[in-house]
Amino acid sequence: MFESAELDISISKDEYNDRLPQARLDLFTLRQELKEAGIAVLLLIDGVPGAGRGDLINLLNEWMDSRSIRNRSFWMTTDEERAHPEYWRYWRILPAKGELGIFFGGWYERAVKKALSGKGSELKFEKAMAQARNFEQTLAADGMLIIKLWLHLDKETHNKIMKKRAEHIVEMDPFANETITKTSYEDIIAHYLKAIRLTGGWQMINCRDSRNRNITAIEAICAAMRGALAEKPTPPAIPIMASRPARILDSVDLSKSLNKKEYKEELEKCQRDLHNLTLKALSKGISTVILFEGWDAAGKGSSIRRITTAIDARIRQTIQTAAPSDEELAHHYLWRFWRHIPLAGLVTIYDRSWYGRVMVERVEGFARADEWFRAYSEINNFEGQLVDDNVVLVKFWLHISQEEQLKRFQAREASELKRWKITDEDWRNREKIEAYNEAIDDMLVHTSTDIAPWTLIPAEDKYFARVEVIKTICERLKRALK
Amino acid sequence: MFESAELDISISKDEYNDRLPQARLDLFTLRQELKEAGIAVLLLIDGVPGAGRGDLINLLNEWMDSRSIRNRSFWMTTDEERAHPEYWRYWRILPAKGELGIFFGGWYERAVKKALSGKGSELKFEKAMAQARNFEQTLAADGMLIIKLWLHLDKETHNKIMKKRAEHIVEMDPFANETITKTSYEDIIAHYLKAIRLTGGWQMINCRDSRNRNITAIEAICAAMRGALAEKPTPPAIPIMASRPARILDSVDLSKSLNKKEYKEELEKCQRDLHNLTLKALSKGISTVILFEGWDAAGKGSSIRRITTAIDARIRQTIQTAAPSDEELAHHYLWRFWRHIPLAGLVTIYDRSWYGRVMVERVEGFARADEWFRAYSEINNFEGQLVDDNVVLVKFWLHISQEEQLKRFQAREASELKRWKITDEDWRNREKIEAYNEAIDDMLVHTSTDIAPWTLIPAEDKYFARVEVIKTICERLKRALK
Repeated sequence: MFESAELDISISKDEYNDRLPQARLDLFTLRQELKEAGIAVLLLIDGVPGAGRGDLINLLNEWMDSRSIRNRSFWMTTDEERAHPEYWRYWRILPAKGELGIFFGGWYERAVKKALSGKGSELKFEKAMAQARNFEQTLAADGMLIIKLWLHLDKETHNKIMKKRAEHIVEMDPFANETITKTSYEDIIAHYLKAIRLTGGWQMINCRDSRNRNITAIEAICAAMRGALAEKPTPPAIPIMASRPARILDSVDLSKSLNKKEYKEELEKCQRDLHNLTLKALSKGISTVILFEGWDAAGKGSSIRRITTAIDARIRQTIQTAAPSDEELAHHYLWRFWRHIPLAGLVTIYDRSWYGRVMVERVEGFARADEWFRAYSEINNFEGQLVDDNVVLVKFWLHISQEEQLKRFQAREASELKRWKITDEDWRNREKIEAYNEAIDDMLVHTSTDIAPWTLIPAEDKYFARVEVIKTICERLKRALK
Repeated sequence: MFESAELDISISKDEYNDRLPQARLDLFTLRQELKEAGIAVLLLIDGVPGAGRGDLINLLNEWMDSRSIRNRSFWMTTDEERAHPEYWRYWRILPAKGELGIFFGGWYERAVKKALSGKGSELKFEKAMAQARNFEQTLAADGMLIIKLWLHLDKETHNKIMKKRAEHIVEMDPFANETITKTSYEDIIAHYLKAIRLTGGWQMINCRDSRNRNITAIEAICAAMRGALAEKPTPPAIPIMASRPARILDSVDLSKSLNKKEYKEELEKCQRDLHNLTLKALSKGISTVILFEGWDAAGKGSSIRRITTAIDARIRQTIQTAAPSDEELAHHYLWRFWRHIPLAGLVTIYDRSWYGRVMVERVEGFARADEWFRAYSEINNFEGQLVDDNVVLVKFWLHISQEEQLKRFQAREASELKRWKITDEDWRNREKIEAYNEAIDDMLVHTSTDIAPWTLIPAEDKYFARVEVIKTICERLKRALK
């Protein structure tokens, strides 16, 4: 979820000054249009302490006509609020049609704090999240635009800011002590990861650099507002990251490699491990689902072969996901994947998977915007059911550079043996690289969850990739078998 | 929920033979049309043992082209199903586009059995229901028509049938022992009430008389199929009871009355009780929400006056629900009611309420079909939040006959003092009696839940009604204060 929000991105002062006027004008204009259209907007701002939630809210007030903005924070709870059902406090301050409400925290913050204080069970936290989702659906069905921003900081930056803040406490500032003292960064993040997975529709804002934060946040808000004003059905919130100064995949270190000797040694060792671990999993009835996505020619097939040779053939199957059959087309797109979920103890390897819905089907227009957007939460729910059933789920993205891909394509065409592997479609896909890049970024942000994170594999060097894949599976199996 | 399904309704053999051919033809034709339209239909049949679920499924197979029907029951669980995540068993047998799947029981039955066996907590049951809702929403979003029938029997009839069945056990019939032996009727019903409230969209079939069951079930299925074939947006399922041979309100015994002496004595006594109980509730921080709905001139105002005089003025407020203000119109329709939810310990009386959404707004066309249909589950969720917060919620429908209403209208017009009470609108509403009757029946079925049942008050005699209302409130308060 937070991958894109932890990239090292910054905007220079000059660039900021260049881009800001237009972004501010867009924001101001769209806000006015929504007002005239009588659309209520609820902007929920949550995130890591120190990320600048307060700063952003102050700026938004400055940049829009603040007279019609209702700012709401929930750091104080009144007697009166405690004496009512929980959601009373939110209902009474909801923005009316044409109004904009900026909510600082709210129902998420409250539920996470409760969970962190040890007052509620995980089931209660899940119930609270179901209630939050229900509340938002109720409002959205009535025409309200709900924009949820998560202002993110990686741990290191968070700690740095908190330390600095502690040195400059302003005595009268009631917000200075808003650091969460008794709980660690990890605990907060773990709960929010779950909250974000269970409720959906969040946009991630990278706050390492405050200029980037401001620009990204405005653009995300503008994109969502534009969506609400558009006449065509658009996703309930715009899933794309508004600014794309860098991609998650760019953070993959493609220089990693192994020489032939290292490869042979390590491969043998980790294949042996995998063999034993899958047998142990079989005896314990723990199933494994491994899925491969990645660029064409990234080496999915050869990685899968190194896995399958290590696992007893009687306990594993490989499912190649090609164009759906007639029968599959006549069902919900998840149906064809549910079919092959392994029996307890067995292993299923998906060569491409349900993520086609949010990649090829999105890019090629086979799925409408509302369909592929809905798929993120359908997929998270599906994977949640697998993990709830103790399935070990490992998701790989095999990454190579565009240059490496071109080399491999050309090599394939030159080889009698490999020519069948390359089709016109592969070349066409290369032309749509930008659309795929966007779709992949969104996919990684929306489906890299607490229970089912993505593993990005640097696959420029095939040796390294193959070993890394098997090692990762072994680690995940070890953890599950402990 | 089950009020309409417990009425004493039967259809004579002649009437049945008259109505059946058309109903069967409709069913057959609509089924073919859905097939051609490529719409998948999932018909989920659940209900009380002995209600005739099996009989109905056998008939449906006979009446439709059974070649394209997939019957699925879940009374056997295979090893293979146990070795997969729970929903795998449902996914693999879902009807494809154009197919009809008839599911006997399924996810509800399984969750209820688990809860009854004492294996899971209530929170786990709620989580299972949230999962069921999510599953159905996922399929419905993909275009599947989901029809959920609850085949109901009151306790007495259920017991009678079970006793008879025990006497005629056919040794080889695996379904004969399908009676739930270790759990009582009440336990099953209590869990299903919760399940139906939390998931919504069920249609209630009265099964006391098997001919009525068959006709009602077919008509309900046909209505839902017609809805799915219609081009205009229709509710996700047809909420109306297909056959309306009798109304829930018809079961109210309007002959109940008190003479003046009884009235004075009883009123004084129960007003004293109410006074004391509300003070006790205040000291314990338990709030009370009382709402009045009912026919015009049924005596809502005078009943409310008898309540308010009994409660200390400092701890109660009466909210008259008239046409919404501009500000209220600019919010979700529930917003205006959330505003007035009492502080812990206090009492709010709503003279008409959020149920306007599913009555006057439905009948007058102020709310679209999808809006008022959605309102049932929004209201159930809203009331669930109140009850979760320990609010005592009492919902009254004051019932009078049409004749009595006419008398009261005429008396009002004749009286200088009361003439203001009657408007042209009251007369107009009388003309829409049929539409109101339907809306009220649906409302009672869909919102009389385990946590917030309706109390139907016979109000033909004002004395009786006033005393009955206060007695009911006192009982509910006593239970909450125990």
